[in-house]
Amino acid sequence: MKSLAVSLTMRPLECATTGGARVHLNPHCEADMPSNDPLIPVVAQDVKTNNVLMLAYANKLALRMTKRTGYMHYWSRSRNKLWKKGEESGHLQKVVSLHTDCDRDTILARVRQTGPACHKNTYSCFTDTVFKPEDIFETLAQVFRERKRAPKKGSYTYALMKDRDRLLKKLGEEAVELIVAIQNRKKARVTAEAADLVYHVLLALFTAGVSLDDVKAELERRHAT
Amino acid sequence: MKSLAVSLTMRPLECATTGGARVHLNPHCEADMPSNDPLIPVVAQDVKTNNVLMLAYANKLALRMTKRTGYMHYWSRSRNKLWKKGEESGHLQKVVSLHTDCDRDTILARVRQTGPACHKNTYSCFTDTVFKPEDIFETLAQVFRERKRAPKKGSYTYALMKDRDRLLKKLGEEAVELIVAIQNRKKARVTAEAADLVYHVLLALFTAGVSLDDVKAELERRHAT
Repeated sequence: MKSLAVSLTMRPLECATTGGARVHLNPHCEADMPSNDPLIPVVAQDVKTNNVLMLAYANKLALRMTKRTGYMHYWSRSRNKLWKKGEESGHLQKVVSLHTDCDRDTILARVRQTGPACHKNTYSCFTDTVFKPEDIFETLAQVFRERKRAPKKGSYTYALMKDRDRLLKKLGEEAVELIVAIQNRKKARVTAEAADLVYHVLLALFTAGVSLDDVKAELERRHAT
Repeated sequence: MKSLAVSLTMRPLECATTGGARVHLNPHCEADMPSNDPLIPVVAQDVKTNNVLMLAYANKLALRMTKRTGYMHYWSRSRNKLWKKGEESGHLQKVVSLHTDCDRDTILARVRQTGPACHKNTYSCFTDTVFKPEDIFETLAQVFRERKRAPKKGSYTYALMKDRDRLLKKLGEEAVELIVAIQNRKKARVTAEAADLVYHVLLALFTAGVSLDDVKAELERRHAT
């Protein structure tokens, strides 16, 4: 089944008004929330990394306020009241999309998180670590680290690691081969040559003590300006 | 607070025995599960992509079986019984790690998912789509698509897109500059030159109709053999 991306269009606001960035609730309305209003779990996910930031609960009012304002609102079970995430800490969650699950009793909220998501000032409520998705570039980096730690006879990677001149000559050669492949307009050849070049660039960076994350951060800086 | 990665070490098994890959529950023991055994939500996350696959519930027995077998077990609220995820469909979830949240009433399970996670045969219970983490490479690809769609005067990207020879000469030039920087052993210079090279390689691949995903798939194929 296709997921239902909950629409973020404006709806009539029954229980609250907004003034600037702040939300003013009608206290009468909030007090009137029936305690048996079904609460459903909401998983908040960081759109930047796909990491799970926290799980909290929402009822109809919290969902309405979330859709109305574009910022995550939850229902606090301990305080039995509406809770705008980050209202006190400033660690707001801007909604990117809301998705219900197959039986419509859970919501996945993809958000842009300001600051740490957890009230204990950690990145997420589950871990300090930002989990990286498994990725061939990360797998290659692990192979490089392993070859450096435990040299392996007959390993091409290890042979290039030990011979910087040979590695850099290969890098130049692979760049030229990619250029020729692109000129020849053969997609499969371009893909294969690009894979060769990428492998040698990553290995050369590794031997120079530069990570792909460093390079990405440099590209981010340029993109930002 | 540091997350508590729940240990996956073997523990005495009170309510079930395993025979090969199958788990045989003691029916008496299962029937004896108190209905007020607290159920807590478990968020299952795909370690390959970090996408959220599903949310289900576990009690002590389900957690014990998960730790004992290394495969996710949940407690079905509708059937009021233990449920080994994928037992019928074969769509098992091999546990990589379990993490409790800051107030220890939710679990994040990082898993290797076999097949679709949702019983409706979709990748996850929330969406058909595998959400990609935001990434500078993806951002650059978006810029390339946008420049192709709507040419922008004064855009360096657009200028290179229109002039293949110039783009490929730049690619060669940047490769040589990276090689020289690595020879000179200046990390900041290496990072900057690698960023230059990566940008030009990505743009050259884009003009050749090859995506970074194609290149990654090629590297995966090689890695797998």
